Amino acid sequence: MGKTGTIEIFDTTLRDGLQGEGISFSVRDKLAVSETLDELGVAWIEAGNPGSNPKDMDFFRLARGLGLRNAKICAFGSTRRKGLSPAEDPHIWSLLEAETGTIVIFGKSWDLHVTEILRADPHENLAMIAETIGFLRAEGRSVIYDAEHFFDGWLANPGYALETLRTAWEAGAGRLVLCDTNGGNFPETIAEGVRAAVKELEGRRGPVKGSEIYTDDGAAPPQSAPMPVIGIHAHNDSGLAVAASLAAVNAGCGHIQGTLLGFGERCGNTSLAALIPSLELKLKHPCLPPGRLEHLAEACRKLAEIANVSIPVNTPYVGACAFSHKAGMHADGILKIRHSFEHIDPALVGNGRRFLMSEVVGRSAIAERVRKIYPSITKDHPVTAILAARLKSLEAEGWAFDGADGSFELLARRELGLYTSFFRIEAYRVVSEHPTGAAIACSHAWIKVFVDGEYEIAAAEGKGPVNALDGALRRALTRFYPELVEVRLSDYKVRVIDGKDATEAKVRVLIETTDGQTSWSTAGVSADIIDASRAALVDSIEYKLIKDR
Amino acid sequence: MGKTGTIEIFDTTLRDGLQGEGISFSVRDKLAVSETLDELGVAWIEAGNPGSNPKDMDFFRLARGLGLRNAKICAFGSTRRKGLSPAEDPHIWSLLEAETGTIVIFGKSWDLHVTEILRADPHENLAMIAETIGFLRAEGRSVIYDAEHFFDGWLANPGYALETLRTAWEAGAGRLVLCDTNGGNFPETIAEGVRAAVKELEGRRGPVKGSEIYTDDGAAPPQSAPMPVIGIHAHNDSGLAVAASLAAVNAGCGHIQGTLLGFGERCGNTSLAALIPSLELKLKHPCLPPGRLEHLAEACRKLAEIANVSIPVNTPYVGACAFSHKAGMHADGILKIRHSFEHIDPALVGNGRRFLMSEVVGRSAIAERVRKIYPSITKDHPVTAILAARLKSLEAEGWAFDGADGSFELLARRELGLYTSFFRIEAYRVVSEHPTGAAIACSHAWIKVFVDGEYEIAAAEGKGPVNALDGALRRALTRFYPELVEVRLSDYKVRVIDGKDATEAKVRVLIETTDGQTSWSTAGVSADIIDASRAALVDSIEYKLIKDR
Repeated sequence: MGKTGTIEIFDTTLRDGLQGEGISFSVRDKLAVSETLDELGVAWIEAGNPGSNPKDMDFFRLARGLGLRNAKICAFGSTRRKGLSPAEDPHIWSLLEAETGTIVIFGKSWDLHVTEILRADPHENLAMIAETIGFLRAEGRSVIYDAEHFFDGWLANPGYALETLRTAWEAGAGRLVLCDTNGGNFPETIAEGVRAAVKELEGRRGPVKGSEIYTDDGAAPPQSAPMPVIGIHAHNDSGLAVAASLAAVNAGCGHIQGTLLGFGERCGNTSLAALIPSLELKLKHPCLPPGRLEHLAEACRKLAEIANVSIPVNTPYVGACAFSHKAGMHADGILKIRHSFEHIDPALVGNGRRFLMSEVVGRSAIAERVRKIYPSITKDHPVTAILAARLKSLEAEGWAFDGADGSFELLARRELGLYTSFFRIEAYRVVSEHPTGAAIACSHAWIKVFVDGEYEIAAAEGKGPVNALDGALRRALTRFYPELVEVRLSDYKVRVIDGKDATEAKVRVLIETTDGQTSWSTAGVSADIIDASRAALVDSIEYKLIKDR
Repeated sequence: MGKTGTIEIFDTTLRDGLQGEGISFSVRDKLAVSETLDELGVAWIEAGNPGSNPKDMDFFRLARGLGLRNAKICAFGSTRRKGLSPAEDPHIWSLLEAETGTIVIFGKSWDLHVTEILRADPHENLAMIAETIGFLRAEGRSVIYDAEHFFDGWLANPGYALETLRTAWEAGAGRLVLCDTNGGNFPETIAEGVRAAVKELEGRRGPVKGSEIYTDDGAAPPQSAPMPVIGIHAHNDSGLAVAASLAAVNAGCGHIQGTLLGFGERCGNTSLAALIPSLELKLKHPCLPPGRLEHLAEACRKLAEIANVSIPVNTPYVGACAFSHKAGMHADGILKIRHSFEHIDPALVGNGRRFLMSEVVGRSAIAERVRKIYPSITKDHPVTAILAARLKSLEAEGWAFDGADGSFELLARRELGLYTSFFRIEAYRVVSEHPTGAAIACSHAWIKVFVDGEYEIAAAEGKGPVNALDGALRRALTRFYPELVEVRLSDYKVRVIDGKDATEAKVRVLIETTDGQTSWSTAGVSADIIDASRAALVDSIEYKLIKDR
């Protein structure tokens, strides 16, 4: 790591992250991800393999116009093919054509992979590493060398694995990144492997023109380069990627590769969102420019939006539940002393504390939650007691407010006299049918609403009855409330509350709604799934209308 | 840990796991979870706080009839209230009324919590610990003592934190569990805290009647108890719960508390599914009875189904993508040498390797399942290959046959020519409506079926549209198949397959049906919940009619 203890953050969402199932980005998405990561302040963005994907080459061309302030974009590729010189390998030329100041080259460290998978001679592998790096350095590029399978290779044949590192360093790679490609090693092994690499390289001469190594950093180049920066690239196959990366830092790594939200093949890469706060807040290693950590949760939300995935609510530091409290005793403790039940202040990472409303929650937590709409409420206010009783009886009927903040707020507003009615559903009818001779089933709905003395009727078809009802309700209301155009449902869940009554059982519907700025969740409960959905949809729209006024 | 290096697995899905947002279980669900955990072979199941929730007391009563073979169920509660004797505290009596052989008692280790949250004198806290444990021991129960906030307490005031442990041990608790309640400590701190606890207790005398400590284990009690079992209870707030638990084991813990799928407050508890394979396969610590580890993925799927959540695809070891390979190079490497890109053999945890875009799916398992209706089938039978391909494409559409044996059998029968059609639905219409002036919503359905050259039409009202359709279908068919009178649905579940398309998303309906003798499960998938339910209902009735012939 740097002299100040600074750790370089290298994000590979756009390269290794894309190996995750269901993750894909258009060129435009990739540009938006780059801007998000740059704004957060990561040092490096690995953006793809220009030789294997023409979309990636488009991206590199367009990325030059982004004007990034913190992050350097790099292209990624392998060492030259066996039997060719670098200048004869079209893949190496495509890396140069991406026109990035730095190029990441991965090569083999595990002799098994050299002889059995690549089917090359171990000496030829060393030549592939040295010549590829030497060629790119001669072309004026900085090189980060990824030692694929370093730890497995080092366990199997330590001498050879370390020799590949030495070769890359002597050929001019300023950063040597040790990869736990299969993700199965324990933090102790990672730390030992890093220490072995440090020991191997310490005291050795780097490349003759060592001073060129850092030239694209923007920083003044050091007069000599006595040591390369050692990096770590971990995977989460044993649930230990964050721990392995921390162990690597303790053992001397100053560069961490990962993906902001942990996207990646199999169980994912190191989640940078889970790691950076621990490094900055607990170990005092700066990773991002000053003041950026408190934008971490925001950057994660933007990335999730671009990737069209939800951030798991239990994600460390940045998940919606990372600072949520359901047990009444915990809520009570936090209101007395913050750190009694919180390991950090959630504001430090741009997240917030939440008290989940449930029957086990105490009155202090209810008062705390209601305070943002009614600042003078206390734990002993009569409405707090009424709400506590209402929560208890509604939960006995199958409601659950811990995932339905919006419906809870409407409940509280009704009790506090802070509720305005914006519309009433006069009648609706939803039909799902499979007519004789039809190829598939279909659903349609009509609805009649009453708004401000006027009736409006609208109809819609849908993929299923709830989708049809949702469409008809929005259509009917948009005439009165044009702002509803920007509102869309982002999640829909159904839970059968007690399955043993089978199709007579009550269901709880939970929906999440967004208007592009914020999102909120509402619930409905009924033995009739259509009616439960109707209740959740109505709450969702009322919440939006109240919120905007 | 035990002399053989065995680690006790303690699952708290039913207690701490319930603190997770959106996690709730009915009494029936809790019984099903207990059976699933027992079958997997965990040593302990912490099942709730009988004093705070009447549902929990019902559970403890019914759980006595389960006949569990591996797991001991325990009740959970706090030390006695300050100022009362244990015999005066109704909460302590409710713990006894749960009639579990072992009771888990949590108490305070952090002086800050004692003085500022509990507002008790530090000596009073020690008395609360000693008297509560002593009282329960005198009533013939074993006690596991959870030292809440042990690590934060030990960092703040090591002498006091260790004194609380000593007090619990001397009062007769056979297991002392060190909790990182706020989840923020690093594995190094966890290991140091465990070593400090071990050092504190080593060489000290345990309780006079030390030999009683292990009496509910089933094992012969040791003549003396020179050391309590030390346990670890970690949370994942820094993404380090698994690493912390491993560090604790290395430092001397022999008992691990967690939740099978990592459910729990905030970022969750230690995920046992992510931890147990590392302990058993890599560190050679037995955790489960022999042969059970290979059922891990199956147990996780059952638990997820009961909790009505999806297992994140990137979950270590048991996620659907844990052994998936997207990169062609990785797939190619694996086909040459398995461990070139895999840290363990997925079969060891009951999971499977997946090549995204390939067709290698467990044919032996398919043949095994089909054998009961077609004894001569083999792994190489052409129908096995056809079924493998059908399963793959149906699963890609959102089907899941894990919980729908009946539908799988019908699928297999169709391919094997063992299927008879008993009826056809000609048309149906389901209406859910809330007419003007009506007090509540209502649903009704009509259906037209074709049986053996004849049409029959029937209608029914229902509590919700699916109940109405179910009623109409049964009514129409009973004229032809009177045995359907004894058939009734015993469970109904809806799962939204991909919530982000909200009400347009596909749903999977799972139903369980019984005729009083046996029960079977069937599934349906569609963007239309009515149509998905129709498919599951039809399979359910066809399965019954085939079964009886």
